[in-house]
Amino acid sequence: MKRRNLLASVGLALSATFLAGCGSSEQAETSAAAEPEAQSFEWKLVTSWPKNFPGLGMGPERFASMVDEMSAGRLKVKVYGAGELVPALEVFDAVSNGTADMGHAGAYYWKGKEPAAQFFAAVPFGLNAQEISSWIHYGGGQALWDEVYKPFNIKPLAGGNTGVQMAGWFNKEINSLDDIRGLKMRIPGMGGEVLKRLGGVPVTLPGGELFTALQTGAIDATEWVGPYNDMAFGFYKVASYYYYPGWHEPGTMLEFTINLNAWNALPADLQAIVTAAARAVNQDMIDEYTARNNAALNQLVFEHGVKLRRLPDDVLKELKKTADEVTAEVAATSDVAKRVYDSFNAFREQSIQYHKISEEAYYDARSL
Amino acid sequence: MKRRNLLASVGLALSATFLAGCGSSEQAETSAAAEPEAQSFEWKLVTSWPKNFPGLGMGPERFASMVDEMSAGRLKVKVYGAGELVPALEVFDAVSNGTADMGHAGAYYWKGKEPAAQFFAAVPFGLNAQEISSWIHYGGGQALWDEVYKPFNIKPLAGGNTGVQMAGWFNKEINSLDDIRGLKMRIPGMGGEVLKRLGGVPVTLPGGELFTALQTGAIDATEWVGPYNDMAFGFYKVASYYYYPGWHEPGTMLEFTINLNAWNALPADLQAIVTAAARAVNQDMIDEYTARNNAALNQLVFEHGVKLRRLPDDVLKELKKTADEVTAEVAATSDVAKRVYDSFNAFREQSIQYHKISEEAYYDARSL
Repeated sequence: MKRRNLLASVGLALSATFLAGCGSSEQAETSAAAEPEAQSFEWKLVTSWPKNFPGLGMGPERFASMVDEMSAGRLKVKVYGAGELVPALEVFDAVSNGTADMGHAGAYYWKGKEPAAQFFAAVPFGLNAQEISSWIHYGGGQALWDEVYKPFNIKPLAGGNTGVQMAGWFNKEINSLDDIRGLKMRIPGMGGEVLKRLGGVPVTLPGGELFTALQTGAIDATEWVGPYNDMAFGFYKVASYYYYPGWHEPGTMLEFTINLNAWNALPADLQAIVTAAARAVNQDMIDEYTARNNAALNQLVFEHGVKLRRLPDDVLKELKKTADEVTAEVAATSDVAKRVYDSFNAFREQSIQYHKISEEAYYDARSL
Repeated sequence: MKRRNLLASVGLALSATFLAGCGSSEQAETSAAAEPEAQSFEWKLVTSWPKNFPGLGMGPERFASMVDEMSAGRLKVKVYGAGELVPALEVFDAVSNGTADMGHAGAYYWKGKEPAAQFFAAVPFGLNAQEISSWIHYGGGQALWDEVYKPFNIKPLAGGNTGVQMAGWFNKEINSLDDIRGLKMRIPGMGGEVLKRLGGVPVTLPGGELFTALQTGAIDATEWVGPYNDMAFGFYKVASYYYYPGWHEPGTMLEFTINLNAWNALPADLQAIVTAAARAVNQDMIDEYTARNNAALNQLVFEHGVKLRRLPDDVLKELKKTADEVTAEVAATSDVAKRVYDSFNAFREQSIQYHKISEEAYYDARSL
C-alpha cells in the first residue's frame, strides 16, 4: 500500500505519505478498485532501445500495459529508454545489481559476462523465430537459460522476436569474400566473430549510434533488424545496398531479465501475470514485424531507391562454415556453454529435418 | 512483507520503523493472497478434442491453469472434452447459447453458420502459423473475426496453432490426380471442397472417430494434424502412406470462443487476464508441436514402417488452382466474407513477397 508514492518521492513527502498509507483504509479502497487491500509494487524496467522504438521498444511498453491491466494496478512497471536510467549496454548489470527490477535487451550483448548467453539471442545459421521459442519452452532451453543467468541474480524470459533479419546495409556491393576483408561493420555476437575471421572488423554499438557512425564513415556497414526498424533509423539515407538473408540473426529472440530479489518478492499471482505477459509479448513482437516489414521494404526500394541484394551462395557457404566453427568454440568456453550448445544443436538438427517437410516444403509448394 | 526497493532506497532503519508502525497494513497484506472479497467466477469451457488430447487439447488445459494462477482463483475454468458436456461439433452452439461460457475448437467447423469463419482457421495455400497470427493481431483480422462472430453472441480469440500440417494418411499411393478420384477422405473446410472438385468425397468427422472410420474402410484417407497428434491416434496401424506438405492446412489456428454475456460480466482485470492467457496459449501450442513433431515422425517411419511421401508437383499445382477458385467463391457468399477474403488475401500477398527474402531465403541458405 502506498509503496508507489514512497518510491516516487523518497524525500520530504515520505512521512506524510507513510502516515496516510498506514491509517486510512478509505483512501486505499479508492486507489485500487478491484483489490483494495492487496500489496502493490512499482518496478523499473530499463531497455537497450530508444524509448518507444518501433518493434523492439514496444515490447516492454506492451508488457507494462498488460501487467498493469491484469494486476489492476498492483504491479506498475515504468519503462526507461536507453540512457534514461542506464546506458543501452548496461541493462544486464543494472538488473543484476538491483538498480532496475527488469530489463529488456538481447542476450548476445552479454557475451563478455558469459559466452553461453549468445545462444539465447541469435546464432548464425541457427534457429528461426518459431524454432527458438520452441527450444526455450519445450526443448530444455529455459532451464539452461535460468542456469546461465542465476549467478547474476537474474531470471530470464523470452521477450519477443524480430524474425529473420536482414544481412545489413553496405556502402558497396558484396560480390565475393574479398569485399568483406577490411569491412568495418557493426555486427554483435557470434556473427561479429564470423565476420572477423573472414577479415572484417566487427564493432558493437547500440542502435541509437548507428546512423551517425555510418554517415561519418566510422563504419562501412551495419546490420540492425529488418525493413520496419531500419526504416525508422533512416539508414537508407547513408547506405545504398540492403542485403538478405540475415544469416547471422535468423530469428533473434529478445529477453526480459528480472532481478531475482524483485521476482521472489512478488506473490504467486503477480509472478504468473509477469510470466504470461512476457509470453504474450514474445509472440506479439514477431506478429508486428511480420505485418510491417514488407510495406517498409517496398517503401525503401520504390520510394527511396534502396538496392536490394541477396548474398552470393559462395559467401553464404563460407559464412556458414565459419559460423559452425565459431559456435563450437563458444561451446568450449565452459561446462554450461557446452551443455547449452549441445541442447541448441540437437534442436537445430531436428528442426532442419522436420521443417524440410513442413514449413520449407510448404513455402515451396505455395510458390509452384 | 517484501519491500526490496524501499530497503535499498531509504535504508533499513527507516523501513523497519515504517513496517513496525503499520500493523494493520501488514495484516491486510497477509490476507490479500486469497482476496476473499473480490468477485469470483466459474466458467465451463467445452472443446472439440478428447479430454487432455496432446497439443490441441492441452491448449485449453493450460489456459485454465494460467487464468487460475493469474486471477488467484477468482476465475476458475473447467475444461470439458468432446462429448462430456456437448459433442465435438456443437461447441460453437453451446458457447453461443450460453450452455458453456467458452469453447476451444477450429473455426472451419462452423462453415455452415457463416462461410467466412473458415478464414480464421485454415485456408488451402493460405497463411502459415507466423503469418496468420500476424494477420489476426496486426493485419485487421481480429476486427473482422469479431464482426463475423458477433451475431452469434461470441467473442473469438486466437487459441493455438498446429504449424504446417501433414497432407494425411492414405491407404494407397497418390501418384496423379486419378488417384484422388472417388477417394473418400476426412478433410474439413475449404480443403474438403477442393478435394470434392477434383473428384474426391470429403467427409467431416471429429478426431475421435477417425481411427475406426479408417480401420473399417468407411473412409480411404484422413488428414488430422501432424506426426505428434497422428501418432496419438494410431493411424499408422491402419494406413501405410503419410503425405506432405499440408497444402490444405498450412498453419491451422485454433480458437477460443467466449460467450459475450459471460465476457461482459468480467471486471477489466479478468478480461485482460483471459486475453493474455489466450495469447500465451496461441504461442505455446505451436512451440509444443515444433518441438515434438520430428521425434514422432522418426518413430512413425523407423519404428512403425510408415512410408513418407511428398505429393507430386502436378497434383499440388492442380490443388492450388482449385483452392484459389474455392476460396474466391467463399468470398462471394456474403459482404463480410468478401471483406475477410480481401484482407486475408492482401496479407497473403505481402507475406509471400516478404518471406521470399526472409524465412524462405533463410531456409534455403541454411541448406546450402
